[in-house]
Amino acid sequence: MSTTQKRHWKSKLHEIIYEADTPAGKLFDVILLIAILASIILVMLESVKSFDAQYHNFLNISEWIITILFTIEYIIRIVTVKKPLNYIFSFYGLIDFLSTIPKYISLLFGGLHALAALRALRLLRIFRILKLARYLGASNTLVKALKASRVKISVFLFAVIIISIILGTIMYMVEGDESGFTSIPASVYWCIVTLTTVGYGDISPITPLGQSIASLIMILGYGIIAVPTGIVTAEYTNQTKTDKEKTGGLTFLNSQSCRNCLAEKHKDGAQFCYNCGEKLNG
Amino acid sequence: MSTTQKRHWKSKLHEIIYEADTPAGKLFDVILLIAILASIILVMLESVKSFDAQYHNFLNISEWIITILFTIEYIIRIVTVKKPLNYIFSFYGLIDFLSTIPKYISLLFGGLHALAALRALRLLRIFRILKLARYLGASNTLVKALKASRVKISVFLFAVIIISIILGTIMYMVEGDESGFTSIPASVYWCIVTLTTVGYGDISPITPLGQSIASLIMILGYGIIAVPTGIVTAEYTNQTKTDKEKTGGLTFLNSQSCRNCLAEKHKDGAQFCYNCGEKLNG
Amino acid sequence: MSTTQKRHWKSKLHEIIYEADTPAGKLFDVILLIAILASIILVMLESVKSFDAQYHNFLNISEWIITILFTIEYIIRIVTVKKPLNYIFSFYGLIDFLSTIPKYISLLFGGLHALAALRALRLLRIFRILKLARYLGASNTLVKALKASRVKISVFLFAVIIISIILGTIMYMVEGDESGFTSIPASVYWCIVTLTTVGYGDISPITPLGQSIASLIMILGYGIIAVPTGIVTAEYTNQTKTDKEKTGGLTFLNSQSCRNCLAEKHKDGAQFCYNCGEKLNG
Amino acid sequence: MSTTQKRHWKSKLHEIIYEADTPAGKLFDVILLIAILASIILVMLESVKSFDAQYHNFLNISEWIITILFTIEYIIRIVTVKKPLNYIFSFYGLIDFLSTIPKYISLLFGGLHALAALRALRLLRIFRILKLARYLGASNTLVKALKASRVKISVFLFAVIIISIILGTIMYMVEGDESGFTSIPASVYWCIVTLTTVGYGDISPITPLGQSIASLIMILGYGIIAVPTGIVTAEYTNQTKTDKEKTGGLTFLNSQSCRNCLAEKHKDGAQFCYNCGEKLNG
Repeated sequence: MSTTQKRHWKSKLHEIIYEADTPAGKLFDVILLIAILASIILVMLESVKSFDAQYHNFLNISEWIITILFTIEYIIRIVTVKKPLNYIFSFYGLIDFLSTIPKYISLLFGGLHALAALRALRLLRIFRILKLARYLGASNTLVKALKASRVKISVFLFAVIIISIILGTIMYMVEGDESGFTSIPASVYWCIVTLTTVGYGDISPITPLGQSIASLIMILGYGIIAVPTGIVTAEYTNQTKTDKEKTGGLTFLNSQSCRNCLAEKHKDGAQFCYNCGEKLNG
Repeated sequence: MSTTQKRHWKSKLHEIIYEADTPAGKLFDVILLIAILASIILVMLESVKSFDAQYHNFLNISEWIITILFTIEYIIRIVTVKKPLNYIFSFYGLIDFLSTIPKYISLLFGGLHALAALRALRLLRIFRILKLARYLGASNTLVKALKASRVKISVFLFAVIIISIILGTIMYMVEGDESGFTSIPASVYWCIVTLTTVGYGDISPITPLGQSIASLIMILGYGIIAVPTGIVTAEYTNQTKTDKEKTGGLTFLNSQSCRNCLAEKHKDGAQFCYNCGEKLNG
Repeated sequence: MSTTQKRHWKSKLHEIIYEADTPAGKLFDVILLIAILASIILVMLESVKSFDAQYHNFLNISEWIITILFTIEYIIRIVTVKKPLNYIFSFYGLIDFLSTIPKYISLLFGGLHALAALRALRLLRIFRILKLARYLGASNTLVKALKASRVKISVFLFAVIIISIILGTIMYMVEGDESGFTSIPASVYWCIVTLTTVGYGDISPITPLGQSIASLIMILGYGIIAVPTGIVTAEYTNQTKTDKEKTGGLTFLNSQSCRNCLAEKHKDGAQFCYNCGEKLNG
Repeated sequence: MSTTQKRHWKSKLHEIIYEADTPAGKLFDVILLIAILASIILVMLESVKSFDAQYHNFLNISEWIITILFTIEYIIRIVTVKKPLNYIFSFYGLIDFLSTIPKYISLLFGGLHALAALRALRLLRIFRILKLARYLGASNTLVKALKASRVKISVFLFAVIIISIILGTIMYMVEGDESGFTSIPASVYWCIVTLTTVGYGDISPITPLGQSIASLIMILGYGIIAVPTGIVTAEYTNQTKTDKEKTGGLTFLNSQSCRNCLAEKHKDGAQFCYNCGEKLNG
């Protein structure tokens, strides 16, 4: 196999794995999507004791199949990229590695409980596949609006926590141990449960004074839920206007990714990467 | 009876059943509305064991009366429409059929539990009667705004589900079996219950670490409830503006429906259907 | 006492009772406000069994004092108004009557339980006293916005109820009796509790399928809470704009009320009622 | 030490303690922030009985260290300010005093329970340190919007309380003692829990009629949560516009504070206090 042929072969594989423009690329994405969802469902089912007891072997074998599939995918991704280190230490590179490794570690140390969490990281890989432009476009406006309101919402949430600590301390003094207010941290926890209108009911006031203060906290929480909503709505309205003015409604529909620098959002019909000048796959 | 007479008679019936312009049509609609509500209440009462035990015969007879009424209505609808197949396979045609059939099936196979659900479909028939223009006008703007924000809200809800799976897995590892976090699916369920601020309290964290993470989840849920609200508000404000510019506030007040193609929203005083040219009932 | 003197005396009393412009009128309003709040607290305390057992006599005597005070006020109101029947059958006239009568009825028939509810109507009398212009101004814009969005919110709430009935019926079939889904009405009740994110936890699903459907219902509820908010926000923003254009920020600061026709919102310094021409109290 | 030297020394200390422009001033702020957070955590841990039993001495000694640190800080603050009385009776002066004194009082009277609440006031001191301009800028717009909507939200919350009292009274009559509706205050408490969508579940209706009314209350609460949100959003949007027009996006980035009158928000590079003419620290 000549170097040119080898390069051509690598280029083909890169196109299939990293992009979704060709039929093969789309098929690969669909298979990967199914594998990811299947692996998530496996992790979930494994945690259901009654199910695990009955189908332990099935779960174990399936997990090995998924792990091997992901390992192959991981190796191909490293091989086809021009600068493997760039990929390995990229966000998705690390997630790919961490979500593949747990089964191998369990061979060495036995089934560690904490490793299941790592496998849940596989879920994040879905985002790579769902790089469809309109979804990105939709969430871009959203993400921008959330970024613009980040500081304000942080100030707001910070205020909510301080209010919770102060009100929690007061409730701890008003209510006794019987109603569940056993310590200030527990009272603060209760106060957050109440302010956010979650209201489990595992701790709830029983003295008239406690119930009165609780009522005030609830009405307060009911009133201040308006604040983050107001902020996000205002910022989102602004963002929508700005976006329209800038792009004229145009969104990026190209799913190509550069083989050299992994840059995305190339212009339609672009021949070379706008970032590093690398030739793009037709 | 001559063909002309027969046609006239059909045309009359069609006007009464499909429209609400004439006194007879309005009366028919009111009777049908009462019959539908009565049938829904019957289904509900039948499910209350103590009530069913005492008044079983009354419920059975009432159900038969309702079923026969709906059967007659269904047959007349087929007869008076020019193209019966169009009606039978239309949305409301199918609902009419499915909500009438259960009692007949129970004659053959006994009272199947699952058939009650079909009877609940009768509720959907209310929408046909309530085809008053101002309600349609109001919900049209709403529906348009919801459609415009569909993609964004889907992205958001998708993000909520992924967050729930990741946080649920973490909580499953932090909390033991005692507090109800018996499996990852149960923890994910708990996480959705918490994020959406529902908070049943059937599962609730008891360890200090678990309560701390739960507090963060609650505050997160409190913050992100602002996102769909912001989206819908922005889209709805836009939609209201666009609608005003387009129609100048004009809404369709005509409840006529074409006997041939079932088209609605005819202009006031229109003599022929704008869609198929069929003569409309005066 | 001449007729003129008598008229003058009536006019004075009318000014004190119905208006808040003079020191005497303000004093009367403050005393009445205290009496109303005291009477509400009395009704509440009476319902606390342990408190009622200990302080029954105190509560009984206080209730009689309040009742007699309200009776005197009611009689003066009738006497000083020119057209007593207009007052008696006005909204506030009926509330005054119904909230005064219970204690007298209890003399005849003993302490009927249901009469306490009538006494709670006294709370509505607060609105008459709090006829301060800026509160009215604030709620006017609010009330207008709510009226404008009335139809749309009704359609929305109607849709919520229909969704609840359909989903409640499905949950009734999925979950058994053990988890509390004993009948369709109970399931519909649970569905409303969940959709509105209240989440008592008295009924909660225990089967995996039931919990999955419940999760979907919660996320649905989380999403659709955005709808009424979006509607009210859009309408309120519109209303604020319209109001500013119309009044230029002007609000009615005059608390006078006509002695003849009870009309309010007179211009400052007006000598005669704009409605019936009656001379106003300087 | 000459008067000039003494003055210079005082001026240096003032700059370190009251401002955050110099490295020493920033270091002091960071240390103070850590001390405040540590003291809050101490108060919380002390309330956890099991923790207090095991580490009582550690907690006691830590509390004394924190108290002595705060005492020294308090004395330096008084000494370096030109008009000590201005500081002592300022908002932060009182908080500094009240959050330092509890441990000394406990020496005289033993560990009073209520004093822990005073120590929670230390949390408020965080706001002084976090006087970063962008946070202030962000919350300024928020605070203005909340102030503008204050009257309207008060009217709204007042209406919520009145609705709760009336509906609570009705529910008290409908439901018996078995379901927890033991008195009108308890029913009103339940009604607030429901209207605000908190939903503890400690009290929940069991009769069909009670559950129907509860459903209506929930849907009502779901609908009216839109009102404060609508108000805040509208006001916040207005406020953002007004702010942009006024400042052109400019925010105060200067953290200097006058040694004489404690005025803040000086212009960058200002040599003298704009309020009293005192020379500012370079």
